[in-house]
Amino acid sequence: MIYKPSIPKGTRDFSPTELKKRIYIQNKIKEKFELFGFQPIETPSFENYETLMGKYGEEGDRLIFKILNSGDFLTNVSDEFLNEKNSQRLTPQISEKALRYDLTVPFARYVVQHQNELTLPFKRYQIQPVWRADRPQKGRYREFFQCDADVVGSQSLWQEIELIQLYDSVFNSLNMKGVTIKINHRKILSGFAQIIGQSDKLIDFTTALDKLDKIGKEKVIQEMLSRGISSVDVQTINPIFELNGTFLEKINQLREILVDSQVGLQGITELEFICNAIAQLPLSVASLELDVTLARGLNYYTGAIFEVVAPQQIQLGSIGGGGRYDDLTGIFGLKNMSGVGISFGLDRIYLVLEQLGLFPEEINQALDILFINFGHEEAIESLRIINQLRQKGYKTELYPETSKLKKQLAYADKRGANYVIIIGENELKKQQFILKNMVSGQQTEYNFSDINQFKF
Amino acid sequence: MIYKPSIPKGTRDFSPTELKKRIYIQNKIKEKFELFGFQPIETPSFENYETLMGKYGEEGDRLIFKILNSGDFLTNVSDEFLNEKNSQRLTPQISEKALRYDLTVPFARYVVQHQNELTLPFKRYQIQPVWRADRPQKGRYREFFQCDADVVGSQSLWQEIELIQLYDSVFNSLNMKGVTIKINHRKILSGFAQIIGQSDKLIDFTTALDKLDKIGKEKVIQEMLSRGISSVDVQTINPIFELNGTFLEKINQLREILVDSQVGLQGITELEFICNAIAQLPLSVASLELDVTLARGLNYYTGAIFEVVAPQQIQLGSIGGGGRYDDLTGIFGLKNMSGVGISFGLDRIYLVLEQLGLFPEEINQALDILFINFGHEEAIESLRIINQLRQKGYKTELYPETSKLKKQLAYADKRGANYVIIIGENELKKQQFILKNMVSGQQTEYNFSDINQFKF
Repeated sequence: MIYKPSIPKGTRDFSPTELKKRIYIQNKIKEKFELFGFQPIETPSFENYETLMGKYGEEGDRLIFKILNSGDFLTNVSDEFLNEKNSQRLTPQISEKALRYDLTVPFARYVVQHQNELTLPFKRYQIQPVWRADRPQKGRYREFFQCDADVVGSQSLWQEIELIQLYDSVFNSLNMKGVTIKINHRKILSGFAQIIGQSDKLIDFTTALDKLDKIGKEKVIQEMLSRGISSVDVQTINPIFELNGTFLEKINQLREILVDSQVGLQGITELEFICNAIAQLPLSVASLELDVTLARGLNYYTGAIFEVVAPQQIQLGSIGGGGRYDDLTGIFGLKNMSGVGISFGLDRIYLVLEQLGLFPEEINQALDILFINFGHEEAIESLRIINQLRQKGYKTELYPETSKLKKQLAYADKRGANYVIIIGENELKKQQFILKNMVSGQQTEYNFSDINQFKF
Repeated sequence: MIYKPSIPKGTRDFSPTELKKRIYIQNKIKEKFELFGFQPIETPSFENYETLMGKYGEEGDRLIFKILNSGDFLTNVSDEFLNEKNSQRLTPQISEKALRYDLTVPFARYVVQHQNELTLPFKRYQIQPVWRADRPQKGRYREFFQCDADVVGSQSLWQEIELIQLYDSVFNSLNMKGVTIKINHRKILSGFAQIIGQSDKLIDFTTALDKLDKIGKEKVIQEMLSRGISSVDVQTINPIFELNGTFLEKINQLREILVDSQVGLQGITELEFICNAIAQLPLSVASLELDVTLARGLNYYTGAIFEVVAPQQIQLGSIGGGGRYDDLTGIFGLKNMSGVGISFGLDRIYLVLEQLGLFPEEINQALDILFINFGHEEAIESLRIINQLRQKGYKTELYPETSKLKKQLAYADKRGANYVIIIGENELKKQQFILKNMVSGQQTEYNFSDINQFKF
């Protein structure tokens, strides 16, 4: 029986057209990363089991792909383990490696492991696939790419400012106008919890608040009540739903609400600093907006929190996010290594560019010039000229067979070639070639020696 | 207890310096691939278990990394399987996915699966990691990158010629002189086996012959004898050890040896065609050499076989290889799809460039210009100028803290910055900056408005 080929669910083949669009985005991002002083690193696709497990919560642990030990992996497993038939307990007995789940934990591991080789602050970027055993659905894959830039080893708020500028600079180079960079601060969220005397309910509080965009104020309040926050307390924080005006106006309103929370006021001061700097260093295509309902992965962010939202007409939501974390490397034993980072959602950025028609047309052009193949002598002469054209940077090839002209021209067309060059027996004698413009259909004869003057 | 971080054996972290060198090589290769009309694709890191198993022999099957099924993977495994404690038999019960072992089988799977979307001949390139559970040793990793270019859907020998030119073109752009492209033909090997009436011993014969470089003629003959080839037969093929002279001279000697083998003569004719074409289209840095002892993965090659050898002074052996295969997609049910491909050994090319000092110096330069940080107002002004410099393509950053000048300069030095720009309180007042050349130590004052004239 012949096996009909397919790929595992949640994974993708990337065709040349798709991949070239993805590479286009990545190159724009990389270029800006490097201009901002970030350097690339790569870490292995799989890490030791213990490096990853326990870092993403119970749900995360479950979604990590584990790699089966090689060889006779059952030898040292006790019969008890096998008889128990408990997959979860058996796993660490038969697997000591797992595919990375994100780029953040491997980066933290990298920083700790290589701490003596690094110049601090260390600015790194990393664009690699990650794997999650999530249920695949539209737009959610089991293999997808993350694209992160982080700085560790400096608490300076200039880093946050640089990262906002970096976001703006990337979206500008992609010609994506109308992006919103939302910002919040973990300490402002802590301040809210503090003023209602519910610091222990910070996560309940923010989980509810985080849904404001999706479910609206009434339901957020309902959820807070159901999570054990009293109606008096909900009343106290009601003004946060009513914030309005510019960034600085919101800041001033917040300062009144959080007047009794020292930690809250710290957060406000930091955001004010960032806001003022950005006002003096205007952004090109993005706007910076204070959103106190933004919480994102609260568990490890300790300072500013970012989320980038696609241009309004697209309705796609987040295309990036990040924030400051004061103790990411703590899990691997290195304390006091504050960091701040952002990430770009490559798949979603792809969708935005596709919808807005922002990919350059040339991307589909696999070939600039095709040479028609008429036989041995003609082919040799063609290859001589092809060598010259390639040296000048033109994507050029010889059709490999002496097929009918029509077939060769159809191939040129499918490959997106704008020009075809014809060297038949007659042309060879006259040391000439015919240049056919595939768009206009026009054909013109030139001498071989003219080739160097052409701009295709 | 704090877990001391490490990575799985046989895997690597790539530091910025290493990675940028790797990217340098990859970019040179990609550029040439595209000029020769190849298009990039990517396939998923893991494939279905059945896609990979049975394609690489028993040894290969063993070396493929299998991914443990997610969730409660033991539920549907019968107790018998567990009690048996046979790892090999249990594996397909608890794993339905595996990490790719090379790029060739996934490519064959891709071609078959997407056959209706492809324009033939289809020229693709692919640069992605592959994984093998090999015993790690110097220069052999469990995760490494393959870099392949293949054409499928044409039997034309012009493809072989183009691929030889492509090799030459890549090594030329890497400035790597003295590369040898060895070529052989499967049909010539078949011819040898035929003339000694041992077609069934083709693999024994070529496996022995393939070792000539390493163990010398005497031991090769010993091995042939021990593999059941008679001493009369060894005598018959003795002339193949004595081939000498130019490519065409060797061809002529071969034609005499293989005069009675039709298949052998076919192989000779093909190589002669290739050799003549290359003579008319001279290579830049590589030389083409006929090596009848070259066998490489004989099992799927059916025509030309290539191997690229590093410049002699390096003693590193193969840095690339490839060949023609007439039935690669047959394993997935698509017949008559002849293909030919080459691959580049990225890790070894890296070693060659390192040894020959061929990496450009700029690679270590993470930064062009560092701005010293003296405080808030100075920083804002610096960031304004930094924005302009980045737009001009200079890698520029502001030191994030107002540390002592000495510390900031040391950072600039470590980051490879050639220039430092100093804007202190005085400079800000005068709207001037001090440009410090980090190589000469020279310092010069300029007006802010001068910035656009600079070439750093």
